[in-house]
Amino acid sequence: MSFIATPQSLHFDAPLPLQSGASIRGYDLTYETYGELNATRSNAVLICHALNASHHVAGVYEAQARSEGWWDNMVGPGKPVDTHRFFVIGVNNLGSCFGSTGPMHVNPETGQVYGADFPVVTVEDWVNAQARLLDALGIEQLAAVMGGSLGGMQALSWTLQYPERVRHAVVVASAPNLTAENIAFNEVARRAIVTDPDFHGGHFYQHGVVPARGLRIARMIGHITYLSDDVMNEKFGRELRQAVSHNGSGYRFSTQDIEFQIESYLRYQGDKFSEYFDANTYLLITRALDYFDPARAFGGDLTRALARTQARFLLVSFTTDWRFSPARSREIVKALQENRRDVSYAEIDAPHGHDAFLLDDARYMGVVRSYFDSFAGAAR
Amino acid sequence: MSFIATPQSLHFDAPLPLQSGASIRGYDLTYETYGELNATRSNAVLICHALNASHHVAGVYEAQARSEGWWDNMVGPGKPVDTHRFFVIGVNNLGSCFGSTGPMHVNPETGQVYGADFPVVTVEDWVNAQARLLDALGIEQLAAVMGGSLGGMQALSWTLQYPERVRHAVVVASAPNLTAENIAFNEVARRAIVTDPDFHGGHFYQHGVVPARGLRIARMIGHITYLSDDVMNEKFGRELRQAVSHNGSGYRFSTQDIEFQIESYLRYQGDKFSEYFDANTYLLITRALDYFDPARAFGGDLTRALARTQARFLLVSFTTDWRFSPARSREIVKALQENRRDVSYAEIDAPHGHDAFLLDDARYMGVVRSYFDSFAGAAR
Repeated sequence: MSFIATPQSLHFDAPLPLQSGASIRGYDLTYETYGELNATRSNAVLICHALNASHHVAGVYEAQARSEGWWDNMVGPGKPVDTHRFFVIGVNNLGSCFGSTGPMHVNPETGQVYGADFPVVTVEDWVNAQARLLDALGIEQLAAVMGGSLGGMQALSWTLQYPERVRHAVVVASAPNLTAENIAFNEVARRAIVTDPDFHGGHFYQHGVVPARGLRIARMIGHITYLSDDVMNEKFGRELRQAVSHNGSGYRFSTQDIEFQIESYLRYQGDKFSEYFDANTYLLITRALDYFDPARAFGGDLTRALARTQARFLLVSFTTDWRFSPARSREIVKALQENRRDVSYAEIDAPHGHDAFLLDDARYMGVVRSYFDSFAGAAR
Repeated sequence: MSFIATPQSLHFDAPLPLQSGASIRGYDLTYETYGELNATRSNAVLICHALNASHHVAGVYEAQARSEGWWDNMVGPGKPVDTHRFFVIGVNNLGSCFGSTGPMHVNPETGQVYGADFPVVTVEDWVNAQARLLDALGIEQLAAVMGGSLGGMQALSWTLQYPERVRHAVVVASAPNLTAENIAFNEVARRAIVTDPDFHGGHFYQHGVVPARGLRIARMIGHITYLSDDVMNEKFGRELRQAVSHNGSGYRFSTQDIEFQIESYLRYQGDKFSEYFDANTYLLITRALDYFDPARAFGGDLTRALARTQARFLLVSFTTDWRFSPARSREIVKALQENRRDVSYAEIDAPHGHDAFLLDDARYMGVVRSYFDSFAGAAR
């Protein structure tokens, strides 16, 4: 039985300068908080979300079935990130399609819906926006910032952009930047969206359509990269959706009909996603992933890039994650160690691939719980 | 300086029964031969092609620049498969778009272009068609059958369908069947093609269009799976196509323009492919890959499935091939060994991923050369 979560929203008038040189003004940030901020305002934990998530980290919405937050197994009363002890904040990032200002909203400069004209936002921009939200909430320093995947990149970026405002950073299933292969998968997904005739150059809203074909393909590609080969074989293998009896093989022999269970699963995931996710948001978020590369300004030297950090770190990776493999987490660990930072690292033997960071795993949950326990007293 | 190759064609009137229960009649097979068939007709080598290849295995076309066959480094005078000693046959598979009867041709039953009505063909069907070609050429038994990837599946299938007609089988970078992940990638590619509005249910020819958007996406996905993460990082890394100077990062900050070299490369590959490859052929060939599973009729027991084989085998895999990983080749090796077959196996340490089977690598070429040398005398 989870608790009731209530989304809130704050409006920001002052323009936010973006890394691209553009700026955005008159924007809203949607967020949720769980637990109580203590008297010394020292127990705040910021949770950063990845591609397909939002401010709704934990709890359920009143009278809404199956509305658990995306990290409800991790965050809540008595959970590894215990809301009896911590004041947890989930915030929807700029450019998203779940509440905060994004491509579906009206640009106050033009009176038109942003669409493809929404400015390109980066991990650094999101962190700056999150910092303004904390300012508004009266929180000077975070007990911890935490995120998985793209959320982990934001957590890492917090320790670089606001080193004095973060005591602990928990970076799960993440990477110091994308590899060429990561970028390649993002690019194929983007091309599928952009070349969908219903995309209309990103201004599909006024045509009353959405580029559902492209979004479906994008999601199918994404899903393959979230799962491990092993878990796909275990869950689906070469299982047929419906074997036929008129031939020995059980095959229907069709190029377009669904033959294997894995096809049925992927089509379902694609269909579902295309009904709620915004195409321009997909482009923006995958680009934020592509661009993140804190070592870039240091000639690729991650150790020098992380010299600014002051936080203590917990890094977690999963053995079968081939999207953000353990080797990528180890790069961060190594660079932090070379800077003599206090860093814990857990490589969890889990079969689920990148998706593992969202799933229950006793050792994973235990590692995060112990880490938060280690400083929960100090945050009181 | 390569030799001149000349494609030939043979027409087959007798209907070919297909695994699906359908049959195809009045079809043509396009093929090429290199070298001389010896007096005892014992030196023939059949080369089977993979997804994006054809009968044009080796040599060049007269007065046509850059027309080398797809395995010209492997097959030819003095090459590992030496056409001074062997009579080599390359044949284009049914359903292809490079000469043999396929979806772009007229169905003699209806007088209409086949399009999406071209019957589903399997690896087994291709092997049966190839056997008829050998019959027509007066070749009873092959010195060797050889192929990489999907071509390797055909080579393996030859040893099961016509065990007495194959003395040696060379199976490179292949697998006993596709994993769920392999099928998943094929399915995304097919969905991209089928949901392209220009696909018109597979009858786009009469609309004067081709589903180029879908083909581009399909090829981009394919390309990612042909390469290793390592080689992509080495060739492209996070290199920008064109760094800009107006901001420190060098980024242009665009969601739709090309930013990274890898994007440029993938778009180019996709564009090129969409100009020459047939969409219905893409569906057919990926489905042939999905369906191949000789162990299926034996309850998944590959050892029992391979009990029929009589040939000697060489299997080759490449360490960084994550599409058809060495582990998949080892499954075949193990099943052959359990049947006490004569099998050699080489796992080549190559950085190029699945693509390695088409590339020059001294050890790889040496292994194949030695293997063919070992029985070249017997074939004289």
